[in-house]
Amino acid sequence: MISEAKPVSLSDLQGRLGGDLEQVRQHVRRLLESDFSLIAEVNGHLLRMQGKMFRATLLLLVNRAIGVRDERAIALSSIVELVHLATLVHDDSVDHSVLRRGMPTVNSVFSHQVSVIMGDYLYSRAVMELVALGDLVPLAIMGRATNEMTIGEMRQLLAHDPLTFTEENYDLLIRAKTASLISGACECGALRASPLVRSAMARFGNALGMAFQIIDDLLDFTEVEAVTGKPSGLDLKEHKVTLPLIHALPRFSAAQRADLNALMAAPEPSPEQIALVVGHVRAVGGFESAKARARTWGEAALAELECLHPSPERDLLRASVAFVTERRK
Amino acid sequence: MISEAKPVSLSDLQGRLGGDLEQVRQHVRRLLESDFSLIAEVNGHLLRMQGKMFRATLLLLVNRAIGVRDERAIALSSIVELVHLATLVHDDSVDHSVLRRGMPTVNSVFSHQVSVIMGDYLYSRAVMELVALGDLVPLAIMGRATNEMTIGEMRQLLAHDPLTFTEENYDLLIRAKTASLISGACECGALRASPLVRSAMARFGNALGMAFQIIDDLLDFTEVEAVTGKPSGLDLKEHKVTLPLIHALPRFSAAQRADLNALMAAPEPSPEQIALVVGHVRAVGGFESAKARARTWGEAALAELECLHPSPERDLLRASVAFVTERRK
Repeated sequence: MISEAKPVSLSDLQGRLGGDLEQVRQHVRRLLESDFSLIAEVNGHLLRMQGKMFRATLLLLVNRAIGVRDERAIALSSIVELVHLATLVHDDSVDHSVLRRGMPTVNSVFSHQVSVIMGDYLYSRAVMELVALGDLVPLAIMGRATNEMTIGEMRQLLAHDPLTFTEENYDLLIRAKTASLISGACECGALRASPLVRSAMARFGNALGMAFQIIDDLLDFTEVEAVTGKPSGLDLKEHKVTLPLIHALPRFSAAQRADLNALMAAPEPSPEQIALVVGHVRAVGGFESAKARARTWGEAALAELECLHPSPERDLLRASVAFVTERRK
Repeated sequence: MISEAKPVSLSDLQGRLGGDLEQVRQHVRRLLESDFSLIAEVNGHLLRMQGKMFRATLLLLVNRAIGVRDERAIALSSIVELVHLATLVHDDSVDHSVLRRGMPTVNSVFSHQVSVIMGDYLYSRAVMELVALGDLVPLAIMGRATNEMTIGEMRQLLAHDPLTFTEENYDLLIRAKTASLISGACECGALRASPLVRSAMARFGNALGMAFQIIDDLLDFTEVEAVTGKPSGLDLKEHKVTLPLIHALPRFSAAQRADLNALMAAPEPSPEQIALVVGHVRAVGGFESAKARARTWGEAALAELECLHPSPERDLLRASVAFVTERRK
C-alpha cells in the first residue's frame, strides 16, 4: 500500500544522489555547447528553463538500486534529459505555447522556425552521444521511446472529442507520450542488471509514467495559475480530453453535458465556462476516480520493485511512487 | 575534365541499378507502414511525393563501385531516404512552404502540428532501423549528418543580409544543409571498403553535395514556375542570399545595388522587382561565376573517384558529377 504519511518531495528523492545530479546538469551543459551563435543563444535559454530532472533522478536511483554501478549512468541520464528537452521544445512549438514552467518558450522568445530546428538539433545530439557510448542497447531503448513519443503527440491531436475519445484511447496516448520515456529512463538505469530485472525496471517506469501523466492531467483541473505557472483548466480550454473528464462524462446530467458541449463548441471558452465544467467534473467524482486510477498504476509500479534487494535506493524508488501519485504540483 | 557531351539524366545513372531502387522504394513503404490512422494517412501522402531517390542512387552506385557488395545496401538506402524525407517535412514546416515537387506539402495538407510531429516520427523510425542493422558505424555517420543538417537549417535563418552573408558563410551553410547527407549516403555505401576508400567516398559525396546545392540555388534564379513546380526567384523573394547574388554583389553598380536594397526592404517583393534583380545578377556574371564554382566542386568530386578500380559503376559515379553540374532542373 502507498503510505499516507507526510508528502514526499522531489528533493527527498534526490538527496542521496549527492553530486550525481549536478554532474548530469554539467554534462547536459557540455552537450549543448555550440560554436554557432544562434544555437548557443537558444541553448542558454534552454539551460535556464531546465526542469527538475525527474527522469535523470529515476535513472540514477534505479542504477544504484540494482547494485551494479554503470559508469555510463551520468551520460545516460544527460541523454534522457536532452531527449526530454527536445520533446518539450517541439511540444511547445506544436501547441504554440507561450509559457513553460513559468518561463517563455523557445517558440515565443525566438520563433517557430528556431524551435522546430532546435528540437531536431537536440534529438540528433542525443543520438550522437548514444553512439559515443558504443552500445546499441540504450540506442534501441531510446530510439523506440522517441518514436513512441511522436505517436503519442499524434494521438494528442485527435483527443478533442469527448464522445469518441475513450479511456482506452487515453491510455494509449499517455503510454506513448509520457510513460515511454520514463520507462526508457528506468530501463537505461538497469543495463547492467539481469534481463529479468531490466524488464521489471522498464515496467516500473511505464507504470510510474502512467500515474505521472494521470496526475499531471488532474492537476490541470485543480491547480491555479500562481502555482503551476500556467492557467488552470488549460486542457479544457484547448478542448483536450483527459481522464477526469472521461470518467465524469457518463455520470453527467443532461444539464451538465450541455455545459460541456457549449465549452467544446466555443473556440475560446471563457474562464467562467471552464470553472463551470471543472465544477461538474469534481461534483460527479471525476477527480477522485482519476486519482484512484493513478494509485492503481502506483501499486503496479511498487510491485515491480519487489525483485530488487532491499536498499535505501529501493526505498527511494518506492517513495517516488508516493511522490508521483500524491504531488500537488 | 567534365565532359561537355550530351546531358546526363538521372535515369542514365539509375539504369544499371535494376530492381534495387524499386526494392528501396518498397522498403521505404514498409518502414512507413503504421496501424495508427493519422500517421498512415500522412505516410500515404509522403509516398506519393517521394522524390527521385538521388541519395539512394548514389549509395547503391558507390556500393557496387567499391567491389564488395554490402547486403545492407537496400536498408541503408531506405534509411537515407527516410532521413531526407524527414528533413523535407520539417523544412517545409519551417518555411511554411505550400508546394514541394509540384505537390502540396504536409503542413499545407494537414497542419503545422502534424508536420512537426511527422518529421520527428520519420527521424526516430530511421534511428530504429539503423539500430536494427546492429552496427554503430552507420549510426555514427547518420547521427552526425542529421545534426549537421539542423545546424545548416539554423544558418539558413541568418542568411538574409547580403552585406554580411559572405561566401564563407554560404559554404558552411550548404555543407551542413545539403552536402552532409549526400556525403553520409556515399560513405554508407562504402562501409565494406577500406578506411581510405570509405573516407574518399565521404569526400566525393561532400564535393558532389556542394555542387548540387550551388546548382540548386542557381536554378532558383533561372527556372520558371512550369519547370520546377515552384516560383522562379523564390529565394530572392524570401530574401535568401545565395551564391549567384554573393558573386554578383561586388560587381553591382550603385543603381543595381539600389534595386537590390529595394527588393530586400520590400516585405513582399513584386515579380517585376525579382525579375529586375535576377537580370542584374545575370548581367554582371553572377550565374556563370556560381556555375564555375559548382564545376570546381565537380572536379574535386571526380578526383576522389580515382581510388576506385575502373568499373561501369565508377563511370556512372563520374556521370553523376556531370548530371549535378549540368542539370537544368
